[in-house]
Amino acid sequence: MIIIGERINGAFHDIARAIRDRDPGPVQKWARKQEAAGAAYLDLNVGTAVTDRVGAMQWLVGVAQEASKLPLCLDSTDYDAIEAGLEVCKEPAMINSVPAVQEKMDRVFTMAQKFKAEIIGLAMNEEGIPGDAESRLALAMELVANCDDKGISPDRLYLDPIVLPCNVGQAHAPEVFETLRQVKLLSDPPPKTTLGLSNISQGTKNRQLINRTFAVMAMASGLDSAIADVCDGELLEAIATARVLLNMDIYCDSFIDVFKGIG
Amino acid sequence: MIIIGERINGAFHDIARAIRDRDPGPVQKWARKQEAAGAAYLDLNVGTAVTDRVGAMQWLVGVAQEASKLPLCLDSTDYDAIEAGLEVCKEPAMINSVPAVQEKMDRVFTMAQKFKAEIIGLAMNEEGIPGDAESRLALAMELVANCDDKGISPDRLYLDPIVLPCNVGQAHAPEVFETLRQVKLLSDPPPKTTLGLSNISQGTKNRQLINRTFAVMAMASGLDSAIADVCDGELLEAIATARVLLNMDIYCDSFIDVFKGIG
Repeated sequence: MIIIGERINGAFHDIARAIRDRDPGPVQKWARKQEAAGAAYLDLNVGTAVTDRVGAMQWLVGVAQEASKLPLCLDSTDYDAIEAGLEVCKEPAMINSVPAVQEKMDRVFTMAQKFKAEIIGLAMNEEGIPGDAESRLALAMELVANCDDKGISPDRLYLDPIVLPCNVGQAHAPEVFETLRQVKLLSDPPPKTTLGLSNISQGTKNRQLINRTFAVMAMASGLDSAIADVCDGELLEAIATARVLLNMDIYCDSFIDVFKGIG
Repeated sequence: MIIIGERINGAFHDIARAIRDRDPGPVQKWARKQEAAGAAYLDLNVGTAVTDRVGAMQWLVGVAQEASKLPLCLDSTDYDAIEAGLEVCKEPAMINSVPAVQEKMDRVFTMAQKFKAEIIGLAMNEEGIPGDAESRLALAMELVANCDDKGISPDRLYLDPIVLPCNVGQAHAPEVFETLRQVKLLSDPPPKTTLGLSNISQGTKNRQLINRTFAVMAMASGLDSAIADVCDGELLEAIATARVLLNMDIYCDSFIDVFKGIG
């Protein structure tokens, strides 16, 4: 599993302030810190308080690219902002995200094709988030079919089964595991998978314990990536261990340090 | 998932000495301690150093029953010792274990029928432990069929896919997860599943991290029980969390304390 670093997000006060004041400092600090901690992508989200989302996203992309070589994951429900961001990305990026809603898929998959971007596709539509794995898989199939229509290989799609907080939507987690297992059967090559890890523990106590336990259970079910806190050391230790147990990395006594890029 | 407490085992020095000297103290201390920590069964293993395994097992059963009401799991490759133990068990016990070897299955399933015992069946035979899930499942099917022949419901069988240490048999762990997922399709009712958790980390560093990570990944794959260290607090926290995420226990802020039976 790889991690998309979640920290450059206007929901955090330091990033909201940095965007408002066009101060590159906090953005570049978190870009470097997440890259050093082992992130594979940097998520960029301008937050909800910004009025000029297009300008803010272009600025974020620019300053993040100055600090890190990692590919970017442009995270917004405003597709004008995402398109503006893609225009200034030096390398192919990831679009976060599109639900299984036809007009949105039309716009996002066209953008993805134009900018050679990967896409996070959400297992939800106008009616909301389904309760069961079967309905999630039907929406995943729509996303895969729309990929195919645009000539985009389905492994450029990261299917997000959508995780709800376990204190309000407890029945969803087993359905998410089942979706992760079955989604690999939908196409050849199969879509990749991702999820917003911190969602599982919103509003709970023991957030980090819940996050890392859910992460490795999802990995056992086939999870390829997660938008997560790459600076959570215990999460990284759990992921490093799960990678060894899935035979993705070779065991050695220092496997945790190897995964963290230490020594 | 439930835990079969692993601690009353002649491989530990205090238990080996207690058996040799017929000193009930250490056995009863661990019986009470494991029951208080949340064990569902107590494993009893006289160890390899004992010459009179029959007498030792009967003594162990007797002193364990004085200290705890938990059902017992009689753990030996010496079926005379297991049968002698079953004769003095006040409540139905579990037999640990039988491989998919015909003469051994004949003896063990006959004993199980006579004493209304549950059985741990190993996915191995004369040729050893298979490398892949498919071969493990073929052996599981032999165990299920032998259960059926003796009129024992297949849910009295706990299938153990056999875990090897991840530093020497790293390719086995993903096959164990796959076996756990598929074994539930073999019969109706399906067999239960178990494994010797500590085996996964034999000879490694970070033993507890590997144990608890493997445990919750196996739970996501359908694991029902494990022979494990029930006094490992972080293991119990991980299992409590996985039970909530599998929707087996209701989330509340104090779910860890509830699982541990505290407060």
